Amino acid sequence: MADEAPFQFLHSEVIQYVFGASDSGDAETGRNITKVESMGFRVGQGLIERLTKETSRFKDELDVMKFICKDFWTCLFKKQIDNLRTNHQGIYVLQDSKFQLLSHLSAGKQYLDQAPKYLAFTCGLVRGALSNLGVKSIVTAEVSIMPACKFQVMIQKI
Amino acid sequence: MADEAPFQFLHSEVIQYVFGASDSGDAETGRNITKVESMGFRVGQGLIERLTKETSRFKDELDVMKFICKDFWTCLFKKQIDNLRTNHQGIYVLQDSKFQLLSHLSAGKQYLDQAPKYLAFTCGLVRGALSNLGVKSIVTAEVSIMPACKFQVMIQKI
Repeated sequence: MADEAPFQFLHSEVIQYVFGASDSGDAETGRNITKVESMGFRVGQGLIERLTKETSRFKDELDVMKFICKDFWTCLFKKQIDNLRTNHQGIYVLQDSKFQLLSHLSAGKQYLDQAPKYLAFTCGLVRGALSNLGVKSIVTAEVSIMPACKFQVMIQKI
Repeated sequence: MADEAPFQFLHSEVIQYVFGASDSGDAETGRNITKVESMGFRVGQGLIERLTKETSRFKDELDVMKFICKDFWTCLFKKQIDNLRTNHQGIYVLQDSKFQLLSHLSAGKQYLDQAPKYLAFTCGLVRGALSNLGVKSIVTAEVSIMPACKFQVMIQKI
């Protein structure tokens, strides 16, 4: 019952704390998004370490992504990613049709400009988790209709 | 599996973010403890609202405290408070013999001075939850042996 609630409420508080009440400039907002993304990165690293403690080695990149979509997502949000697509050239799109950390914002376009604040942490989570599994990536997110959301993962070949 | 981990890792990040890496002065530490306690307060308010949505009215103050020790604590930390004591005059002592948010610090006395940073948020959680149930309180915490911990709740009669 309400298992994900503590995380969800704490996440909201973090966003409010970091971004503050006032609408600051674009540069400031950018810096704050970076801060929140970094927090997500470290949480993702810690979390994936715990989750993969007793997992066998992953076959390949796609296998890693499936783990992120299933086990990692379920641990965080009590549901799996609804759709995973890839171009088989290092780009993956993870679609969550009811993303929990947006679910407290009204649907519709009214708060669409607020969405990036609520996605940065999760971009960091995914990037951190992948990083600890040896996969370097760039993760971005976009919302077209709340609370559905797409995370795009671009694998960085070394 | 690892259900409480996202909350736990995020809490650690919040503490690091708010307190920073450097050892600042006592006044600064005090202000930061207040900030973290306030975050806990708001999370506690939100959480108790969700948890009590379908709960029947509480009989009395002790009944409220029992709910905090069982349902509220379990939602947050996947375990109940181990011991609840009261003097029946508005003071309650909640003892957690293995407090999750301290469990990543080494046992022993080495990090005892770091403990208050990791307890402030939870003091706020309890105060916020009680406040939303109409009970005004002051909540403090102390650690004698890690990771055991006591929260003292002093009810403020109006």
